[in-house]
Amino acid sequence: MKALVYRGPGKKAFEDRPKPKLEAPGDAVVKITRTTICGTDLHILKGDVATCKPGRILGHEGVGVVHSVGAGVTAFKPGDRVLISCISACGKCEYCRRGMYSHCTTGGWILGNEIDGTQAEYVRTPHADTSLYPIPDGADEEALVMLSDILPTGFECGVLNGKVAPGSTVAIVGAGPIGLAALLTAQFYAPAEIVMIDLDDNRLEVARRFGATHSINSSDGKALDEVKALTGGRGVDTAIEAVGVPATFLLCEELVAPGGVIANVGVHGTKVDLHLETLWSRNITITTRLVDTVTTSMLLKLVQSGKLQPGKLVTHRFELAEVMKAYDVFANAAQERALKVVLKSD
Amino acid sequence: MKALVYRGPGKKAFEDRPKPKLEAPGDAVVKITRTTICGTDLHILKGDVATCKPGRILGHEGVGVVHSVGAGVTAFKPGDRVLISCISACGKCEYCRRGMYSHCTTGGWILGNEIDGTQAEYVRTPHADTSLYPIPDGADEEALVMLSDILPTGFECGVLNGKVAPGSTVAIVGAGPIGLAALLTAQFYAPAEIVMIDLDDNRLEVARRFGATHSINSSDGKALDEVKALTGGRGVDTAIEAVGVPATFLLCEELVAPGGVIANVGVHGTKVDLHLETLWSRNITITTRLVDTVTTSMLLKLVQSGKLQPGKLVTHRFELAEVMKAYDVFANAAQERALKVVLKSD
Amino acid sequence: MKALVYRGPGKKAFEDRPKPKLEAPGDAVVKITRTTICGTDLHILKGDVATCKPGRILGHEGVGVVHSVGAGVTAFKPGDRVLISCISACGKCEYCRRGMYSHCTTGGWILGNEIDGTQAEYVRTPHADTSLYPIPDGADEEALVMLSDILPTGFECGVLNGKVAPGSTVAIVGAGPIGLAALLTAQFYAPAEIVMIDLDDNRLEVARRFGATHSINSSDGKALDEVKALTGGRGVDTAIEAVGVPATFLLCEELVAPGGVIANVGVHGTKVDLHLETLWSRNITITTRLVDTVTTSMLLKLVQSGKLQPGKLVTHRFELAEVMKAYDVFANAAQERALKVVLKSD
Amino acid sequence: MKALVYRGPGKKAFEDRPKPKLEAPGDAVVKITRTTICGTDLHILKGDVATCKPGRILGHEGVGVVHSVGAGVTAFKPGDRVLISCISACGKCEYCRRGMYSHCTTGGWILGNEIDGTQAEYVRTPHADTSLYPIPDGADEEALVMLSDILPTGFECGVLNGKVAPGSTVAIVGAGPIGLAALLTAQFYAPAEIVMIDLDDNRLEVARRFGATHSINSSDGKALDEVKALTGGRGVDTAIEAVGVPATFLLCEELVAPGGVIANVGVHGTKVDLHLETLWSRNITITTRLVDTVTTSMLLKLVQSGKLQPGKLVTHRFELAEVMKAYDVFANAAQERALKVVLKSD
Repeated sequence: MKALVYRGPGKKAFEDRPKPKLEAPGDAVVKITRTTICGTDLHILKGDVATCKPGRILGHEGVGVVHSVGAGVTAFKPGDRVLISCISACGKCEYCRRGMYSHCTTGGWILGNEIDGTQAEYVRTPHADTSLYPIPDGADEEALVMLSDILPTGFECGVLNGKVAPGSTVAIVGAGPIGLAALLTAQFYAPAEIVMIDLDDNRLEVARRFGATHSINSSDGKALDEVKALTGGRGVDTAIEAVGVPATFLLCEELVAPGGVIANVGVHGTKVDLHLETLWSRNITITTRLVDTVTTSMLLKLVQSGKLQPGKLVTHRFELAEVMKAYDVFANAAQERALKVVLKSD
Repeated sequence: MKALVYRGPGKKAFEDRPKPKLEAPGDAVVKITRTTICGTDLHILKGDVATCKPGRILGHEGVGVVHSVGAGVTAFKPGDRVLISCISACGKCEYCRRGMYSHCTTGGWILGNEIDGTQAEYVRTPHADTSLYPIPDGADEEALVMLSDILPTGFECGVLNGKVAPGSTVAIVGAGPIGLAALLTAQFYAPAEIVMIDLDDNRLEVARRFGATHSINSSDGKALDEVKALTGGRGVDTAIEAVGVPATFLLCEELVAPGGVIANVGVHGTKVDLHLETLWSRNITITTRLVDTVTTSMLLKLVQSGKLQPGKLVTHRFELAEVMKAYDVFANAAQERALKVVLKSD
Repeated sequence: MKALVYRGPGKKAFEDRPKPKLEAPGDAVVKITRTTICGTDLHILKGDVATCKPGRILGHEGVGVVHSVGAGVTAFKPGDRVLISCISACGKCEYCRRGMYSHCTTGGWILGNEIDGTQAEYVRTPHADTSLYPIPDGADEEALVMLSDILPTGFECGVLNGKVAPGSTVAIVGAGPIGLAALLTAQFYAPAEIVMIDLDDNRLEVARRFGATHSINSSDGKALDEVKALTGGRGVDTAIEAVGVPATFLLCEELVAPGGVIANVGVHGTKVDLHLETLWSRNITITTRLVDTVTTSMLLKLVQSGKLQPGKLVTHRFELAEVMKAYDVFANAAQERALKVVLKSD
Repeated sequence: MKALVYRGPGKKAFEDRPKPKLEAPGDAVVKITRTTICGTDLHILKGDVATCKPGRILGHEGVGVVHSVGAGVTAFKPGDRVLISCISACGKCEYCRRGMYSHCTTGGWILGNEIDGTQAEYVRTPHADTSLYPIPDGADEEALVMLSDILPTGFECGVLNGKVAPGSTVAIVGAGPIGLAALLTAQFYAPAEIVMIDLDDNRLEVARRFGATHSINSSDGKALDEVKALTGGRGVDTAIEAVGVPATFLLCEELVAPGGVIANVGVHGTKVDLHLETLWSRNITITTRLVDTVTTSMLLKLVQSGKLQPGKLVTHRFELAEVMKAYDVFANAAQERALKVVLKSD
């Protein structure tokens, strides 16, 4: 089969690979019909993710059709249409029982990282019963690809950890796909204000269309002043960090009101300064989280009911055979006005 | 009356001052019968607390007898025996209504800081109805002095914020009075293990007597290894920082297990390094808090029921007239084996 | 001044009464500009509310202008435009500190019940600092009258107690003003389905306009079957009882899914059958609540932000002088297609 | 093998039965070393449990040694010492993922009810990976039998649902094994008062030894008066119903303070009167729950740490061969001063 393979820092290839086989009783093999590219895939290609070795098929998002299942799989059978979670969860270990699938002792984020991923014609998914989700008849499968990773990530790491609440004030720093996923799902809780902060006017315009009540281009260094002005000097109840660099985390430290939460979503490559000399007495909470995908079923219900429309994050579509070109578009997201690019195969 | 007055960095005096008067309808004037010295008073004397100006009577802890009340006070009358909270709370502002008394817009920690405090024969207490607590008949008033500040601080900032739970594993870094207050109150939630970490063997011995299941002298730099060994390599569910310097906060970052909480209690004078490059994916929570004293009534009930015995934190007793000597003892706590020193007046 | 006075079961009069005076330092006297009639007023007129004695001025909802304040009032001054909460809260007692204003030891629901109420030109409001709310400039005062009682009642007793959550399924039994208030505020939490159940097709049509995803006229006794069909036989996550009779509570017992909540909002005059022989093992929660009005500030923010539009509950408007006619319309709500009738005075 | 078999209402026999075999990939067969008799077994023998048919081997509690495992079992292997949960949980269905193992769509309480149980030499346990728990080396296996059912039942249905909290006041109605299990585990949360109510002075004496601060023999009908006297007229924060008849549930309705919780644990065979005409405005919560056994791991940790000593619930010991006699003793619990009877086999 054809697959997109990581070949070491800076290198990737679209090449022939053997079709995956069942390896454990809990496995399924899924024929991919739609997949996408994640910012994390770009991190891997930079060589930033030590667990991902050359030779690995990339991709941890996708929907498809079950091709075969192991002897222990009871919830799925060949022919079932499924959503693939970016997190594999055994459902049995202490972390899984606590709802921390991200730290499953035999799973977690392994797809397209420690095992071969979804940017291929087929993928082997371990712990299939608790890592795949049935797709309701008539669902828009392209839209559901957004539920493999970015929607639960924005929602769990940003919105739930950030304790967004009716009437509250939220700032989201970073209007990329993850920040926009936080924006879409923050609205489940009717905050009074959602302030989107980014450097890219195009993305800020998208954010306003997606429900942000205010947008701030922070390139002039005045984002803090503007948020303070908007909030009577108080700051925000929830600051969602959706970038992953020290400057944006520091901005969140400054934006957050007493009693507020900084919910980190960004993937950080370096330490940050935590200003406890002012924050120690401000009654704040800081959270970090690798997505657990424990809300996938709930997000599916909200898509089915029409209250969540993740399809609007898709800006570009390609055949799987065009994956190299799709990477180029996604890597030049600002210029291409790209959010999520979907790869299709049959 | 006599009072202990801050005279600028490094200077204090026990001197005559006019007896305080009612200034607002919500005020009470309380005759102090017992007060104590807090680590924060030593910070003030070092010049570290910018809000506290020379000339200020120090002290934010104490019990006494109501001497007079303003026209708006309905819950207390002269002659009532009362516990004075270190936090003044109006009960009306948005922060007070959310239970964040620490950020009361006309109160907070002002006693012995922005207004004259309790190390005196009398003190004026603003917002008396919501900042004083009636002392039950027959209560041990010396023990209750511990409820002005250190018990609610250890409990709210450390134990509640730290989400200590039945069967969980807790590390408390710092075995001073606040760390020990966290230790005493952590036991309300039946954690399976409480590991106390300090540099002073005497304090660690006290901690074991007070209920710590393990104690570690961290002077050899091996505290992390010992905690990892104790927890099967996993780390602790709750790490309570009760010192306030970068090294101890960093230790907490290393001690905390995935899914755990770092509850900061320490007063920090400088920023710390937050290692988001490892912590971003570990699903941890960090909290800061200036004590709100919202649990004072509950702690009083637990003292009355015998389940909390804060009196055992008192190691030294002095007359108020001996306050200068009491400060010397408290400032040399390790050598004097001092925890809390109580000052008595009649 | 003119006021609507309860004259014993079945009797009321619009008559002259002396203007109220300040009686305690915490009191305010407010000139009423808008008030309304509540279903509870009709209960009083039937003689069902033992605490309300003949001679009482009715009414516990309204907005107005502060006329005078007592010596202890610090948050308001004459001329301030204010929303009057139906619950008076001292902010000091143990219940108030726990956020249970409904059980304030010197307040609770007393307005228009144990003390004279708001269907008058002026009203005395005890505990003014914690029972009045400032009205933002430019706000629609008529809409805000809905925040005195019915919006917080539907929200606190129905939606919050009912733990409405994103993706969940909600049934609201009773499409009167309170049930509709629950419907409007349930949408703060993005449930996937909201099923409205009533006997009146007109109200059900209103419910659909206000956001119900399904409506059921239960007069044919098939509401349970329809809900089961809608939910794959499972029942609803939240059943909100907004009527107050045994039959509707029983329906909620039948509607609720395992793990679900029955949130009682209705005022009941008689006991009901609780079928523990089936419910003991179904992991359900039943809640009761007299509104605490602890969410009034939050609801005000949501009105200001445009996310809550309570004005659409107002169907009829009268001058205060027409109050007898307004009662007639409200008492024949179904026929008059009345939801809330607003009374205006200048 | 030998087994205790239900033979229809009023009838049981200790008879030969074939050793169970693996039937599904997730099954284990466990050799029982210790089991016990539950009040529910007596209910079955009365014919009260319609799901349990004649011919069924009874028993849903026990510890033992794994004899064989199906192909899908990954967490256990033959020879492992295990605790058997009374609830079988697949870990995959929507209820299991929400932590409601009691409502597992292919499990729940089936052992000794819908499938053969543990009062035998061997038992087949479905969903073994998520329904068995490893026993730590050196653990007291007799004590751990109490963790199959009664400790999690008292804790989850009574203490957790009842929101027992530091400083709170708790009444437990019913001092049988389940009520005593609630008593032992309520102490994890340091309530200020725990009042035990029963008709049997012997059990009340046991309750005082196990930590009850007060005990009331309710045979004189004055329990309510006594509790009101103890609580200043207010009632209790948590009322735990551990009997299962209308009279005791009614007592809980009367005992509970405004803002409190009635946590039902009892198995009810008939409806009860719910006095909503008084309770509608008292802000109370009523919960029901079939135990989910989601706290088994946590309870195991607390047994290992010495903070929970369930062994003290064991009053009588028999060989499995003496099971008929053991039933006689347990059925005459008051006279025999029996709490839990343990059955041993090798």
